[in-house]
Amino acid sequence: MSDDERQIRQLVATWMAATKAGKLDTVLDLMADDVVFLRAGHPAMVGKAAFAAAASGQGPAPRFDGTSEIQEIQVHGDWAFMWTKLAVAVTPPTGAPTKLAGPTLSVLRREGGKWLLARDANMLAPVPA
Amino acid sequence: MSDDERQIRQLVATWMAATKAGKLDTVLDLMADDVVFLRAGHPAMVGKAAFAAAASGQGPAPRFDGTSEIQEIQVHGDWAFMWTKLAVAVTPPTGAPTKLAGPTLSVLRREGGKWLLARDANMLAPVPA
Repeated sequence: MSDDERQIRQLVATWMAATKAGKLDTVLDLMADDVVFLRAGHPAMVGKAAFAAAASGQGPAPRFDGTSEIQEIQVHGDWAFMWTKLAVAVTPPTGAPTKLAGPTLSVLRREGGKWLLARDANMLAPVPA
Repeated sequence: MSDDERQIRQLVATWMAATKAGKLDTVLDLMADDVVFLRAGHPAMVGKAAFAAAASGQGPAPRFDGTSEIQEIQVHGDWAFMWTKLAVAVTPPTGAPTKLAGPTLSVLRREGGKWLLARDANMLAPVPA
């Protein structure tokens, strides 16, 4: 495994752990300023500031658990892409957890020697009970 | 606009026109042998052969119409990525059209001087009537 691939796998592990722990600043440090998040049924979310506003404007944070199984990482110079199988459970302060699963496709960029998430396609869908 | 960007825009235009015309061979010529198609609620479709089998095993083909609005193309050497806003209407041989819309995120690769679709994330969702 190349150093680049190791660093990108560490980015994913840190992202998941920080999201579970509610550490928004840590998650924000893993994305490019011009990051774009794409998903079905929603307009594109463009920019780190938009992610921060959405994450901090939700009121009491839901609990989050999840696993990301990386299926492929390809590094080409200062750019890389990756796809994963993601499964998450989101539990609101009061209520039952919602389980979601599906693939992700992401583009990453190296800035100042550090890999950052730059473009992200999230294809999570509800898991039938 | 660079020649590469022009060629990638032409790939998208050819893809849409060939899909509307039911020209499967033309669409297959636009993708890499190891292409991966990702979407919500379905396992990854891996390889050109899997796409061909799925497209030709559907019985009477539905009619297809649609538009793809390219939002960004970035080219880095022999790799590129792109995201679009896609809107399609699929009409079965008997029945009403289904309208779908949403973003796509794609990775493209240049092989022998020709750009090909390599990885594709499709986030289409039904459009409320």
